[in-house]
Amino acid sequence: MSEDQDLGITQSKIHNTGEWYAEVVQKAELANYGPEGMSGFIVTRPRAYGLWERVQSYLDTRFKQTGVQNAYFPLFIPEGYLEREKEIVEGFDPEVAWVEQAGRNELEERLAVRPTSESIIAPYLSQWIRSYRDLPLRVNQWTSVVRWEATETKPFFRTKEFLWQEGHTAHATRADAWAETMLRLNQYESTYEDLLAIPVLQGAKPEHDKFPGADTTTTVEALMPDGKSVQGATSHYLGTEFADAFDITYTDTDETSRVAHTTSWGLSWRALGALIMTHSDNQGLVLPPTVAPEQVVIVPIWQTETKERVLEYAEDVANNLDDAGIRVELDDRDDQNPGFKFNEWELKGVPLRAEIGPDEATEGTVTLIHRPDGESITAERSEIVETVQEQFDAVYAKLYAAAEETLNSNIRIAETRSELLGTIGQHGGYVKTPWCGDEGCETAIKDEIAAEIVMVPISSDEDDEQDTTDENMGVNNDTTVESNEK
Amino acid sequence: MSEDQDLGITQSKIHNTGEWYAEVVQKAELANYGPEGMSGFIVTRPRAYGLWERVQSYLDTRFKQTGVQNAYFPLFIPEGYLEREKEIVEGFDPEVAWVEQAGRNELEERLAVRPTSESIIAPYLSQWIRSYRDLPLRVNQWTSVVRWEATETKPFFRTKEFLWQEGHTAHATRADAWAETMLRLNQYESTYEDLLAIPVLQGAKPEHDKFPGADTTTTVEALMPDGKSVQGATSHYLGTEFADAFDITYTDTDETSRVAHTTSWGLSWRALGALIMTHSDNQGLVLPPTVAPEQVVIVPIWQTETKERVLEYAEDVANNLDDAGIRVELDDRDDQNPGFKFNEWELKGVPLRAEIGPDEATEGTVTLIHRPDGESITAERSEIVETVQEQFDAVYAKLYAAAEETLNSNIRIAETRSELLGTIGQHGGYVKTPWCGDEGCETAIKDEIAAEIVMVPISSDEDDEQDTTDENMGVNNDTTVESNEK
Ligand SMILES: [Zn+2]
Ligand SMILES: [Zn+2]
Repeated sequence: MSEDQDLGITQSKIHNTGEWYAEVVQKAELANYGPEGMSGFIVTRPRAYGLWERVQSYLDTRFKQTGVQNAYFPLFIPEGYLEREKEIVEGFDPEVAWVEQAGRNELEERLAVRPTSESIIAPYLSQWIRSYRDLPLRVNQWTSVVRWEATETKPFFRTKEFLWQEGHTAHATRADAWAETMLRLNQYESTYEDLLAIPVLQGAKPEHDKFPGADTTTTVEALMPDGKSVQGATSHYLGTEFADAFDITYTDTDETSRVAHTTSWGLSWRALGALIMTHSDNQGLVLPPTVAPEQVVIVPIWQTETKERVLEYAEDVANNLDDAGIRVELDDRDDQNPGFKFNEWELKGVPLRAEIGPDEATEGTVTLIHRPDGESITAERSEIVETVQEQFDAVYAKLYAAAEETLNSNIRIAETRSELLGTIGQHGGYVKTPWCGDEGCETAIKDEIAAEIVMVPISSDEDDEQDTTDENMGVNNDTTVESNEK
Repeated sequence: MSEDQDLGITQSKIHNTGEWYAEVVQKAELANYGPEGMSGFIVTRPRAYGLWERVQSYLDTRFKQTGVQNAYFPLFIPEGYLEREKEIVEGFDPEVAWVEQAGRNELEERLAVRPTSESIIAPYLSQWIRSYRDLPLRVNQWTSVVRWEATETKPFFRTKEFLWQEGHTAHATRADAWAETMLRLNQYESTYEDLLAIPVLQGAKPEHDKFPGADTTTTVEALMPDGKSVQGATSHYLGTEFADAFDITYTDTDETSRVAHTTSWGLSWRALGALIMTHSDNQGLVLPPTVAPEQVVIVPIWQTETKERVLEYAEDVANNLDDAGIRVELDDRDDQNPGFKFNEWELKGVPLRAEIGPDEATEGTVTLIHRPDGESITAERSEIVETVQEQFDAVYAKLYAAAEETLNSNIRIAETRSELLGTIGQHGGYVKTPWCGDEGCETAIKDEIAAEIVMVPISSDEDDEQDTTDENMGVNNDTTVESNEK
């Protein structure tokens, strides 16, 4: 078994969360670090890229069902375009990678490798939109972006290049743009809750922490097991400020020229980080069946004299599941024993293991084991497809329930400042508390303990933006929110 | 009708092919040129990106069915890595865009924006492959690459950044790697012939024109209506030279360490260029139904007194087609007349138009018009789904037959050098001719007329690589092959 231990996870999720996470990513073959000279970059291996493809497919299908079209804008953005955006937003300048030389020549104007694409997309929206008939206009692109943050690398959470999608839309009215903002936020929520088995909280960022230039930044936040909040995705109602700056106007039905209302929204591969972090354990990766590359692995258990009939039975089960569209792997390797195989597939996060030995073959059954907790079920061979599908649902429900329990038990209430400090200091997690709307009150808390406002209630009311009162409830958290995303 | 002419194509496909192509791309809303300071870049609009998505989906499905997994490698490659590759290949140095500054700092080693990813993928293949059990290993990525070519921009044919896929595989034996090379070449052929309605020729590049470092470069070539050959995609058998240089070795069943045989293969959005160029005409874009964003557009034709029943009937037909999974658009705009609509949808390349007026509504029919040639069919309302699907097949067959006719009538035979010069000089297109295998004989032709060897017969025989004899047939062409792809 010493060979197994080399392959297995040696760090503890509770005691060394960071080291444990890095080990799971490495040993479950999700990612490697980039080459020397490229710290902050990762190589996304097929097992992780497959997870990203399932997130893409889930979200992209919903985008297309709701009027979004994909497009592709250049990788580079001329410096002058970024400058133009800087008139309204602070910009990403300190984090930009610049191309100054290309081919045999020095460029006349240096080009930014896109840190986000607002400033190159907006001028084209301006060209494409002429009249109210062209609205709403919705484009999205799936790309990588580069932000040269000087923090320690954490695969899928903090990397200098990351994969994401960015959607940009223009609308005739404030109401339409608001509906769009919330539609995308709800699609992000559904991605977390219905695909990744992670419950999230919906809210808005406080005024001083929203996307620069946005009217309102909405967010879905997920609580990690170490008590930190992860910003799962954001959806911005940009008002008319961007459209004003980039001349995104349209001729209305009454022939008047009006400024469009715009939105933007993005989800990055940080969703994979949250996925890995939330469900996995000291045996390795744990994945919900919705996204797992292999949903069920069959491990046949034989002696020399039973090998033939066990394998024949196992192959038959595998074919049956495969025909039903289930992602099944039959691990019939000769050179590894079942214990080794159990450990390897547990490490890789396969949600359901099917054990088939001579008893199962004789009795016409299959033993199914849940990855998260080892619960064992005896399935009838004749009902194997239905039973496996039911057990997928059961595993999903277990993962979701555990994450929900973590979330619910970590939302505490504080009515006063000293209650708040005491509660977060002792427990971490979130605290629901009234907030006057003044940034100074947050700063005072930040100075005492590393906590900040994660969200305030979403309000679409045009007039109340500055009117945050003691009636509003902020949700706090024991650490800064990850900053790898807009 | 003057408004229509503004919107329509003004250039002639035959007389000004280049200008005509640029106009179709622009007016069919496929792409815009990049911003000032970024000549050579294009913005891929949704109508073109949707075409790329269908190519991706077709090919990616087939890749996955045949053992390929997608991955994602960093956008940047350290200069030292490119240098290492240069020991075996000439490299892309003169075409590379370099990042020297990122964040607030000058980088210690400059980074290339990937022109292709061999040099960063190979070291990871080396890490991941330990024993024969890890073979074959197949990874692919869908990305953009940057090559700073100083030629005139031609959307999808010549751009400084282009979208593509690059696959990289390692195998235990030469035979396996050869089979892989041909499998991918056949998948490319199928993409052109079964999805894009473009017949292609399969062949190998002559020794002096193969991918540097490759053992054999295979290609699919499509003949454009202007008599130029487009290299549609390439698949390289790399032998063991790359694996040697990057230490891609494996422990074989007999415990011996052996060098792997590798392949690489790629298809770029040049396929969209070939698609647009091949089928379109002086009325605008023409697309096969397999990839068209709208497969059929319904144009209702009404007078005030017939409007209600015509529209009701048309909506019912639209719902019926939509339910059957057909991409249908009902153009019920009030503010444009049918003639305007006909022109607009012709310009945009919708393969089938359905006209519905009071007569159709009364008689229970639908008039269907083929985009390529205006052929008109009366369909029974009760059989509309089947008839529309049949007409899709008919339109596809028409497009393919026309392209095949162009191809076949432009492959000529020449037995002697003077025959060859005469034939190409007069007709362009391809010439099938014996070739001694000596580059000098090609140069002599090149010097007289702008023609070069497009392909020689594919041979997988290990010993005959240098043994090209007069028995082999080269295929020539009146111009250089596009060079936007490996
Ligand atoms: Zn206060
Ligand atoms: Zn010769």
